[in-house]
Amino acid sequence: STRSPRFAERTVRVALLGLGLIGGSIAKALREDPSGAGPLDQNGVEIAAWTPSSLGPRAALEAGAVDQVARTIAEAVDGAALVVICAPPIAATSILDELVICRRSGRLAESAVITDVLSTKRWIMAEAAKRSLRFCGGHPMAGSTETGFAAADGSLFLGRPWVVVPDHHGASSAAALVERLASSCGARPVTMDADLHDAATAAVSHLPLLLAAALVSAVSQGEQGQAADGWRVSHLLASSGWNSATRLARGSEEMGADILATNAREVRRRLRALRDELERWDARLAAAENDPLVGRTDIRARLVEARETLKEID
Amino acid sequence: STRSPRFAERTVRVALLGLGLIGGSIAKALREDPSGAGPLDQNGVEIAAWTPSSLGPRAALEAGAVDQVARTIAEAVDGAALVVICAPPIAATSILDELVICRRSGRLAESAVITDVLSTKRWIMAEAAKRSLRFCGGHPMAGSTETGFAAADGSLFLGRPWVVVPDHHGASSAAALVERLASSCGARPVTMDADLHDAATAAVSHLPLLLAAALVSAVSQGEQGQAADGWRVSHLLASSGWNSATRLARGSEEMGADILATNAREVRRRLRALRDELERWDARLAAAENDPLVGRTDIRARLVEARETLKEID
Repeated sequence: STRSPRFAERTVRVALLGLGLIGGSIAKALREDPSGAGPLDQNGVEIAAWTPSSLGPRAALEAGAVDQVARTIAEAVDGAALVVICAPPIAATSILDELVICRRSGRLAESAVITDVLSTKRWIMAEAAKRSLRFCGGHPMAGSTETGFAAADGSLFLGRPWVVVPDHHGASSAAALVERLASSCGARPVTMDADLHDAATAAVSHLPLLLAAALVSAVSQGEQGQAADGWRVSHLLASSGWNSATRLARGSEEMGADILATNAREVRRRLRALRDELERWDARLAAAENDPLVGRTDIRARLVEARETLKEID
Repeated sequence: STRSPRFAERTVRVALLGLGLIGGSIAKALREDPSGAGPLDQNGVEIAAWTPSSLGPRAALEAGAVDQVARTIAEAVDGAALVVICAPPIAATSILDELVICRRSGRLAESAVITDVLSTKRWIMAEAAKRSLRFCGGHPMAGSTETGFAAADGSLFLGRPWVVVPDHHGASSAAALVERLASSCGARPVTMDADLHDAATAAVSHLPLLLAAALVSAVSQGEQGQAADGWRVSHLLASSGWNSATRLARGSEEMGADILATNAREVRRRLRALRDELERWDARLAAAENDPLVGRTDIRARLVEARETLKEID
């Protein structure tokens, strides 16, 4: 019952499942070849896009960024060589279930490679492995505060790392195709395993998100009615420092919850290290409370140390 | 042995002790009347400036921002109606000691009002009270990432709050003069007590600074040599979120150490609340580690709550 791929002899078909900022930017980048590194396939690319509402795909079709608005996942993946899941983590599992059905029915080719763009990798890799899908994980390290296809930008990935996470049981050809996708979008493919990716993003992205939210919750819980709690005058005293410290708490709660929930183990590990460090900070502050002139020396040393450490990855 | 103030009949003399970003911006603002609210004194202002090196004051004299480069603190305050300490917190204590000597020798008039621009208020108020100085605290809520007189800007304070902290034992005329200083610089004077100021700034400024430094220390301490620690690939994965979360750890360690050391009590109180909150976050993550689909509900609710709370002071 498989449809014979319409452009099989001439083009490679890419199915985008989800077409927001990232999916839309992939579509545009595949059209525009922003880095001049060459297209995904010399014979051209045919792009099909599916979202539950079809709104993004319809706008993309009008903009010439995709070739087909697929009404179903099955229609999108039919004849595709590459399937890119561009949905939030939790929604992605039901898409995986759908892909299993498509493979059984033959709509999804055995040879098709499935990849994703999610911010956590261990969880989706495990979900794909459970379903024995031909999967190679991906995570383009690019974003914007804006969302949706309207914010899509063909140069979003230019020069940015695009993490490629091969399935240990999968063929290297699957990873090669995902690397080609990354390069065609102007990104630098960087291969690493899911554990390393999730440990590093827990450190530099997911724990900072948790911390921004925890900071807001903690400092707004003053003793009710006591002047000393200070929250009621905080609007007068908050400055650009407050805005930086809480910026990550201003993002999408759907995305944030999915990320923290699917990388909970690594974030907990980082959180343990942070809580230990905060215990040490409490001791430093206790010394300063006793004598500021004495206590400041240790505090200053720690601030210097943190700034030097920052330079290691800047 | 007091010098008869040169402009006593016509002008009010202001002594700036310290002339970096804030002191320099005060000098310029007093010259420029940026808000059109009127000058500090209808008869004009004479500005004397002192710093240990005289570099800032000399540049300011050339720029027409001050009238006199004082070689000593005594020379600066001689005949002054208002003395503004624009030095870092810890340095400020030795200036207070110097002012006690100046008052004993008569160089500092009994009627002169002393104020400051420091980021913490309880500590400096207590230090001034110990020395029985005629003191009214101040904290202009404005700043820049740049430092030094070269970065001084007469419109720095325009429309910003300027916290005025009267000494409970002092005359209200002292506070009135500091409020006039704030208004002349284009700021909005806001009177509050030192406890409230320090509680609020601990919440929205000082704890966030500590947290930025603690985050860097915690996540860079991986298990040595283990791939899973992730710090060695963090430079690939760090994004704008990391930069925001760590921005406050990139500032001056001298200023940071002084602030944390002189507001240790309030920062500790906030830190306790934060550590409790992080314990609750650990439990939420544990639930998600067990089952992401179940755990995400509570996590999402907390992220929504934090974002709503943020709006209260935005």
